[in-house]
Amino acid sequence: MTYRFDGYNWMIRLEKGEKLISSLTALIEKEKIKTAWIYGLGAADQVEIGFYDLEKKEYEWKKLDKELEILSLQGNISLIDEGPSIHIHGTFSGGDMQTFGGHVKDLTVSVTCELFLHNWFSSDGITRSLDKDTGLKLLDL
Amino acid sequence: MTYRFDGYNWMIRLEKGEKLISSLTALIEKEKIKTAWIYGLGAADQVEIGFYDLEKKEYEWKKLDKELEILSLQGNISLIDEGPSIHIHGTFSGGDMQTFGGHVKDLTVSVTCELFLHNWFSSDGITRSLDKDTGLKLLDL
Amino acid sequence: MTYRFDGYNWMIRLEKGEKLISSLTALIEKEKIKTAWIYGLGAADQVEIGFYDLEKKEYEWKKLDKELEILSLQGNISLIDEGPSIHIHGTFSGGDMQTFGGHVKDLTVSVTCELFLHNWFSSDGITRSLDKDTGLKLLDL
Repeated sequence: MTYRFDGYNWMIRLEKGEKLISSLTALIEKEKIKTAWIYGLGAADQVEIGFYDLEKKEYEWKKLDKELEILSLQGNISLIDEGPSIHIHGTFSGGDMQTFGGHVKDLTVSVTCELFLHNWFSSDGITRSLDKDTGLKLLDL
Repeated sequence: MTYRFDGYNWMIRLEKGEKLISSLTALIEKEKIKTAWIYGLGAADQVEIGFYDLEKKEYEWKKLDKELEILSLQGNISLIDEGPSIHIHGTFSGGDMQTFGGHVKDLTVSVTCELFLHNWFSSDGITRSLDKDTGLKLLDL
Repeated sequence: MTYRFDGYNWMIRLEKGEKLISSLTALIEKEKIKTAWIYGLGAADQVEIGFYDLEKKEYEWKKLDKELEILSLQGNISLIDEGPSIHIHGTFSGGDMQTFGGHVKDLTVSVTCELFLHNWFSSDGITRSLDKDTGLKLLDL
């Protein structure tokens, strides 16, 4: 992972073999990022995505081990008790250009992954708290 | 709907059962937002999306009543004579991770919907006017 | 193509028949844009998208000549020796709302295409250099 900060936003490059969530977590901790909106594109060769089952209050996970274009990543960084929270949804395509997507549990970069972080301009970050109705940690706004 | 403003951007959380367009319209009117770029992700259980038929100059609509992940919302807020104009395209996925999408007429939030509005930094907003060739209101730039 | 700058960001409207890459190239050269993150939505009637074959180190291209909604464009502008480099991934849908996508070689706008450029706030732009392992020009960060 290499990255640059322009005073407001972060531009990040992940290398082949790096994982999205652990790379972002390392960046967040090193640079003390509290809250930001995340965008990204690139390629991956391992993707684990989920679909939230609201009745069961748990994710159904699906793992894909093949070359994929990352068409779009969108999500955000916020704060929970245990540390940073990273919430990202992704759209991907295979060699047939067909797409699929879901809540990104994690992905392993293939070729490259380019991320843009739009910083939240406030000294105190935005937190998440457990919402009992949905079983998920929702943004405290 | 709850939201926060950092002086430049808006972070918004929609609740289960809230509709995207009427919620954004209420926010725009209350906070006097003129122009912004919209991003979002989350989940929905009712989605109405369209495909524009340029020959007929009308949208073909499709309604989906099932649990869906909102993979990506992207669009903008501008001004028309009647008030605010909200133009959003969305990509969605079901439990099989297959995706579909279109021009978002409206959607009903399930679980949560997280939106980010990047404000246009100009005191006068950007307007839209009817373009007779396409039958749509296009950005006046 | 018409566009406006708010001091930080660009809002762009492409017209029916205009091509994405040559339009952006013209804008970049005229306005001396060095680095920015790109977002977009709209409609296209010709799209050429690719999937990168990492073993062969070349793109497999697919051309589509039909009316499509542009659900999401995401990418960036950077600098290479020859001039500006535009890297964009896109998600598209047809009349059946089914989606597909890939690395955007180019597209021809139908109806309209609305783009938002989030400028990189640094006087020196970000460059790309050839990475021999992947065969692609990657961001120098």
